Amino acid sequence: MKFIHRLEQAWAAQRSLLCVGLDPDPARLPGQLSSFAHPIFEFGRAIVDATADLVCAFKPQIAYYAAARAEDQLEMTISHIRRHYPAIPVILDAKRGDVGSTAEMYAREAFERYQADAVTVNPYLGFDSLQPFLDHENKGVIVLCRTSNPGARDVQDIASDGRKLYQLIAEKAARDWNANDNVLLVVGATYPQELREIRAIVGDMPILVPGVGAQGGDVAAVLANGATADGTGLLISSSRAVLYAGSGADYAQAARAAALKLRDEINLCRKFQGA
Amino acid sequence: MKFIHRLEQAWAAQRSLLCVGLDPDPARLPGQLSSFAHPIFEFGRAIVDATADLVCAFKPQIAYYAAARAEDQLEMTISHIRRHYPAIPVILDAKRGDVGSTAEMYAREAFERYQADAVTVNPYLGFDSLQPFLDHENKGVIVLCRTSNPGARDVQDIASDGRKLYQLIAEKAARDWNANDNVLLVVGATYPQELREIRAIVGDMPILVPGVGAQGGDVAAVLANGATADGTGLLISSSRAVLYAGSGADYAQAARAAALKLRDEINLCRKFQGA
Repeated sequence: MKFIHRLEQAWAAQRSLLCVGLDPDPARLPGQLSSFAHPIFEFGRAIVDATADLVCAFKPQIAYYAAARAEDQLEMTISHIRRHYPAIPVILDAKRGDVGSTAEMYAREAFERYQADAVTVNPYLGFDSLQPFLDHENKGVIVLCRTSNPGARDVQDIASDGRKLYQLIAEKAARDWNANDNVLLVVGATYPQELREIRAIVGDMPILVPGVGAQGGDVAAVLANGATADGTGLLISSSRAVLYAGSGADYAQAARAAALKLRDEINLCRKFQGA
Repeated sequence: MKFIHRLEQAWAAQRSLLCVGLDPDPARLPGQLSSFAHPIFEFGRAIVDATADLVCAFKPQIAYYAAARAEDQLEMTISHIRRHYPAIPVILDAKRGDVGSTAEMYAREAFERYQADAVTVNPYLGFDSLQPFLDHENKGVIVLCRTSNPGARDVQDIASDGRKLYQLIAEKAARDWNANDNVLLVVGATYPQELREIRAIVGDMPILVPGVGAQGGDVAAVLANGATADGTGLLISSSRAVLYAGSGADYAQAARAAALKLRDEINLCRKFQGA
């Protein structure tokens, strides 16, 4: 099944646009996990089990696993999701990008080794660098367009003939790169006006929106500017605000409470939109 | 010691601007390695041992190791270089880029876990995404500027006020990002005219130049357009043309012969430049 159809099914069945990001910072793991052989996996497993009925996707961030020499625990985490929650898509947040032959290796890393349903990629190297990912027609390729950080403007606002780079990326994604109907974009919640412009460019293409919660993005503005006419079209991603909602023995319940609150806040805004 | 000084010492002591890239494609490894417990490491070790006196740096490409679930063999390869050839800098080719807190994890991956001397990074997310790398003042941060692939033009040629994106990246690298004197750039050998422009912008900043050999870049043009006045300033990187020069039992000797030929070809052009 194509990624976009998996995602549409998850949106509908879960009644949620919430994506929980798994960014397991070793310095912030609850103390009681230190006795486990695989504390990063145990943390991820507990978060996944506590929030799986509330989300449309999980998004593990590979940098946290790589820094900790814990690729095995990333594999275990994704296997756990696949086994117990097979209807929930897994997005590997890796922001990969390289020339053709190397990009093919990164595609294998994401889709074959880790069995992810989708991966985030960086468009700086141009279209041919994305092709090895796009060729996996049932996988999702989520292209960075407008990132959530303050410095996003440095490069992404470069303007040519009145069109800024992030707008050009959105146009290329919608017109040139999406032959397999497997392209999505990343647009930060911290830039609602840009989200509106990009939605106008890409039609109903799904958009992954990081930056609510710890980074300060506003949920109502994201929905107002980014939702499609049917009140979907978005994966609204939160990591730290969910993962570290609590730090004691009840950290998983605290994460669930934070995820529930955010899912409901999102759905309330969807209703307000007439969804 | 700062990376740039390690590099200058290697240029002088080795009399070489050649960087050998380690891109161990499992499909192309010599057959006799299949009986080893760690064939990817054995391949890298043999290439390193056969070429260490000919190079100014080694550049392992992490994608090949990650696709093969062989991060341990990447660690072993880098440890081998450090132990036996401590004067040769190791560049981790990873093209990482993410928002601040995640970028810090990628910096740890490269500099702490793998003990690399330098890492390649992608500037699409802007200056604040590079800062966690730049803060490691003794490490090299090699920013993608003009990549070697045909599609490089898609994004990197976007022009604003007559200045193209790759020119802007070069300007920012030279003026704004280099407070710790630890920034380098990537410029593909396949774009000699752009290399000339970028050299004019960045002064003596070292430039990593992939794309000679398999990708068709011309050595003489690279030296003529990219060398500094003293005949250095470049790391001219070759991967496949060296690694897969032979495929039989003598693959390491074949790699050495290819590396020797390329090093000498480079040095001949340097002499021609008056170096």
